[in-house]
Amino acid sequence: MRATIYGGPGDITVGERPDPRLQHQTDAIVRVTLGCVCGSDLWYYRGVNPHALGPIGHEFIGIVEQTGAEVSTVRPGDLVVAPFTFCDGTCANCAAGWTGNCLNGGSFGNHGVDGGQGEYVRVPFADATLFAVPGRDHSDAVMKSLVALSDVMCTGHHAAVSAAVKPGDTVAVVGDGAVGLCAVIAAKRLGAERIIALSRNPARQALAEQFGATDIVSERGDDATKVIMDMTAGVGVDAALECVGTGQSMATAFGVARVGSIVGSVGVPHDAVVPIQTVIFRNIGLRGGVAPARRYIPDLLDDVVTGRINPGLVFDHETSLDGIHDAYTAMLERRATKSLVRISG
Amino acid sequence: MRATIYGGPGDITVGERPDPRLQHQTDAIVRVTLGCVCGSDLWYYRGVNPHALGPIGHEFIGIVEQTGAEVSTVRPGDLVVAPFTFCDGTCANCAAGWTGNCLNGGSFGNHGVDGGQGEYVRVPFADATLFAVPGRDHSDAVMKSLVALSDVMCTGHHAAVSAAVKPGDTVAVVGDGAVGLCAVIAAKRLGAERIIALSRNPARQALAEQFGATDIVSERGDDATKVIMDMTAGVGVDAALECVGTGQSMATAFGVARVGSIVGSVGVPHDAVVPIQTVIFRNIGLRGGVAPARRYIPDLLDDVVTGRINPGLVFDHETSLDGIHDAYTAMLERRATKSLVRISG
Repeated sequence: MRATIYGGPGDITVGERPDPRLQHQTDAIVRVTLGCVCGSDLWYYRGVNPHALGPIGHEFIGIVEQTGAEVSTVRPGDLVVAPFTFCDGTCANCAAGWTGNCLNGGSFGNHGVDGGQGEYVRVPFADATLFAVPGRDHSDAVMKSLVALSDVMCTGHHAAVSAAVKPGDTVAVVGDGAVGLCAVIAAKRLGAERIIALSRNPARQALAEQFGATDIVSERGDDATKVIMDMTAGVGVDAALECVGTGQSMATAFGVARVGSIVGSVGVPHDAVVPIQTVIFRNIGLRGGVAPARRYIPDLLDDVVTGRINPGLVFDHETSLDGIHDAYTAMLERRATKSLVRISG
Repeated sequence: MRATIYGGPGDITVGERPDPRLQHQTDAIVRVTLGCVCGSDLWYYRGVNPHALGPIGHEFIGIVEQTGAEVSTVRPGDLVVAPFTFCDGTCANCAAGWTGNCLNGGSFGNHGVDGGQGEYVRVPFADATLFAVPGRDHSDAVMKSLVALSDVMCTGHHAAVSAAVKPGDTVAVVGDGAVGLCAVIAAKRLGAERIIALSRNPARQALAEQFGATDIVSERGDDATKVIMDMTAGVGVDAALECVGTGQSMATAFGVARVGSIVGSVGVPHDAVVPIQTVIFRNIGLRGGVAPARRYIPDLLDDVVTGRINPGLVFDHETSLDGIHDAYTAMLERRATKSLVRISG
């Protein structure tokens, strides 16, 4: 099969990989229809975070081609969403709902598991991992939103759930990448009344507003904190969603969070420091991390299939598998918020 | 009146202070019966944290002597518990229940407000701050537990509430000071089934067990983490209560917390670093801080008055007001877990 190969920093190509075969009776083989590029893939591309040489990509949807004898919840022909991590569904963490922290799981495109930026993927623990979407004849817009469920929409949702967003809340979303934009959707969906999106990019500002942002703040750092504190009568927001993972984004999130609230953080941390004095002296909590996407997909699916939420709109660039290098560089050069990769029909 | 005076690092004496008078119609004057020394007072004594020169002490109970015209919930003759912070009860933070973060409040023994280690205290916002205890003829044991409600019992409770301790949980308590011991009480009271107390002091180990600890771990640092992970089948505890505030205690709490759990932290931070990678890649949250004692006192009072919980047992050293310097040094030299100061009958 043809698949994207990570050859080291800056080296993303399409090459040949062995066709995946069932290795365990709990495996399924999925033909990937749509994949995409994640912000975390860019960290690998830039050589900041390590990644094994070989297959890459962890967000995809596709059609089940083959299943092992012990697979019962999905069957050949099913349209499935793969969460970005596979999980056994039975370990202590999975049993507690933390499917992204499965003791026997891992991430696609890592540790010898096929990546989602290729034609086929062997999916371990298919019953626990894959989620079969009712029907196959969804619009292209819905299909894109289903890919978003693989990671970014669930990750944005995790930020909002971690920060305990509730009806009527004022929420600040720090970060206007795909995850931040999905966090706006999530906050709106959970009933937030006022959603303050931090962005200085006109296209992303517009999408944030389309997703439910009521206010846009284009300042950064201390200036952003000051503006948002002024907007909230000096009290701060009921929930701050940190969707970047840098020192500045963490400082901004803690700077605008009201006493007693929780910062929901889902950015991959790079030089992020938790201001412990603020935690203790303002009673501001911190929750978040790797989203338990498999747990969230069923909760979010109906809203996606009916079009009540449209996270697929974060894809503003498309390539074929052959265009994968452009898919990466478009995001790196900020020509794209997030790149969709059309792999098979 | 006579009151304890902080004269700078190492300088704790009893001296003369002006008798407090009502300054606002919302004030009350309280005659202090029992006060005590807090672990945070030791940080001032040692010169590590700054404290204004003058009155000191923020934990006390006493009898109301006089009230301003606008005070309606307490009256002269009432036995009252003073939470360690005063609060107006009406600001945005108080309205949300965060009475320890009142926008117009502060701590006793600071910013020109009388300290609890003296004969009398002018209490600002008496209605919102003071809590009147039904009856006056409580046993000495109950009176000591009422003083503990002023801070340490509420602070230990805050660690447990912040970590979302629930019935059946396995809980680790990091720190065997008065707050850690009260956190054991709080965890037990909230239904924890297994409570692992970290302590290498035999007297504190015994008290932890009396309070409900089911297991004692005398190891520290990485060794403690390893022992507790082994005790929990490699999964970790459902809630970790961090009651010290140092780098090591924070590392231990995050090291033993299971995926998806929350570290409840109430130690005053000194070189404490939050392991952000653990937060994100293990989904371990952090909550806690300055306890909203005034909010918790009504919840805990009945258990104290009936003797179902006995946080007053943390007082293992007693002095008169004249013995205040010994009250401090006994704790500094670890002759005492916590020193009670008997001020008036």
